[in-house]
Amino acid sequence: MSAPPIAGVLETAIYVADLARSRAFYEDVLGLSPMFTDARLVAYPIGRSVLLVFLRGGATEAVVMPGGVIPGHDGAGRIHYALSIAAADLPGWATWLAAHGVAEEGRTQWPRGGTSLYFRDPDGHLGELATPGIWPHEG
Amino acid sequence: MSAPPIAGVLETAIYVADLARSRAFYEDVLGLSPMFTDARLVAYPIGRSVLLVFLRGGATEAVVMPGGVIPGHDGAGRIHYALSIAAADLPGWATWLAAHGVAEEGRTQWPRGGTSLYFRDPDGHLGELATPGIWPHEG
Repeated sequence: MSAPPIAGVLETAIYVADLARSRAFYEDVLGLSPMFTDARLVAYPIGRSVLLVFLRGGATEAVVMPGGVIPGHDGAGRIHYALSIAAADLPGWATWLAAHGVAEEGRTQWPRGGTSLYFRDPDGHLGELATPGIWPHEG
Repeated sequence: MSAPPIAGVLETAIYVADLARSRAFYEDVLGLSPMFTDARLVAYPIGRSVLLVFLRGGATEAVVMPGGVIPGHDGAGRIHYALSIAAADLPGWATWLAAHGVAEEGRTQWPRGGTSLYFRDPDGHLGELATPGIWPHEG
């Protein structure tokens, strides 16, 4: 017997101190558009996935809804995440981030041809813009 | 002017206390196969994305590599993530988790038709197995 298959990663979560401050960053700088917002959460569609930005401490307790229960969770620290971009968009992203006062904290060239550009969000989370050619299962 | 496009979420990170314990869970229970491992990290391909399991405190300092620098990061708490599964695989997953002693901590039916099954990993991270029909941008 083996486990049933998993098709992909649907949701990636970060936890932030100030939702308004994070929305300004993720919407005005990263260009994302929320598909859901409430007092404790903003959800951004990215490709077929979802980036969930939770207010720190806002989801610690289980939430009972008409359809069931969402157990509690919470996170701290400076979490890493990576977002895929086209290689042709890397120069435009570097210019765009600089124009918005977001420092390029590092850049890495990978043996398979990909490039990673690193930046911090307002909570210090380590964001990465990644062009194709980083991991063996790509392409 | 608007931001250049983002194609998807490439990497989702969690931070754990014991890599061997986490590998037993993610490989033997969730059925994932690592494509990279070292003393501080295990990387699992999932669809076109990557789940990164970092040893807590293992990536706090910047890493200098031949191709550049990876800035530091770290996380704590019980982070949430969701993995996509086919609707037809939900009963099999429920049976599989139970057979491996993993409690189903909650289940939610969503108005769009999707189902979420929640579980905890060994660090208390809140994993979710999600069938299609949760978010408006799906399908």
